[in-house]
Amino acid sequence: MLIFGMDPGLAISGYGVIDYVGNKFKMLEYGTVETESDIDFPTRLKIIYDSYIKLFEKYKPDAVSIEELFFNKNVKTAISVGQARGVHILAAVNSQIPIYEYTPLQIKQGIVGYGRAQKRQIQEMVKIILKLDKIPKPDDAADGLAVAICHAHSLKYAKNFKL
Amino acid sequence: MLIFGMDPGLAISGYGVIDYVGNKFKMLEYGTVETESDIDFPTRLKIIYDSYIKLFEKYKPDAVSIEELFFNKNVKTAISVGQARGVHILAAVNSQIPIYEYTPLQIKQGIVGYGRAQKRQIQEMVKIILKLDKIPKPDDAADGLAVAICHAHSLKYAKNFKL
Repeated sequence: MLIFGMDPGLAISGYGVIDYVGNKFKMLEYGTVETESDIDFPTRLKIIYDSYIKLFEKYKPDAVSIEELFFNKNVKTAISVGQARGVHILAAVNSQIPIYEYTPLQIKQGIVGYGRAQKRQIQEMVKIILKLDKIPKPDDAADGLAVAICHAHSLKYAKNFKL
Repeated sequence: MLIFGMDPGLAISGYGVIDYVGNKFKMLEYGTVETESDIDFPTRLKIIYDSYIKLFEKYKPDAVSIEELFFNKNVKTAISVGQARGVHILAAVNSQIPIYEYTPLQIKQGIVGYGRAQKRQIQEMVKIILKLDKIPKPDDAADGLAVAICHAHSLKYAKNFKL
């Protein structure tokens, strides 16, 4: 099963593509989509949308896994990133790919096993699970891989529940 | 000049289409795009996007005028409406239409002349300016017309500044 993970953002959006077959993981690609702040806002949204449409065409993933936004104070940032996130989701739905959302807490639990894990611990686990030589950089790309792994793990549990 | 105004939203998004030629206004259409809350979120975004793509194809507007989001407390609502607004903007940019943003304050000033105008006063002015028989309903559609008129007025001032 090919899973495409996304950590949505406006200036920088991270993604990770993994193949998950028979309990084994294979990392296919990770990276970022970046938009400079001097580009007008509608064009930044278009760059994000077009980039993901292209990546979905390339990989034809079975599922898109995306991190839920969580902000506790800055409403302005929430609106800005919210607008970008809507475009990420639209790229997946317009590519006819099922979308799954996970909260930061679910991602931590799904990877390290507990919700208070530090960013560094998550990244170490992403490296180990995917048998990478080093921690993926930047953080956004590592987060994209993490949310993809989280979806694979939740599938495993979903299967168990069905038994 | 054909101006397409949008008051973005997730459950209900209002729009108004006006033609502005030689200081005269003509209302072409107003309405709403509505998405029920029992539809999954990605599909709701797709409904909004597809609806506006279709409306832009129908009218081929010269400009899209959209209200800026303004929230002072509810971050959750801000994220939700933000995601929907991103999709509104993407529909315009993917249709190659220039987009202009106006704050609620600019819209009030652009229509009634002062920033503390009440909603009802705005709606009365929209009715008068567009020579309508009655106030457009629902409020979201009236707001869509208002932001379209606001853009027409700001064009007028822009012209004056150039002289």
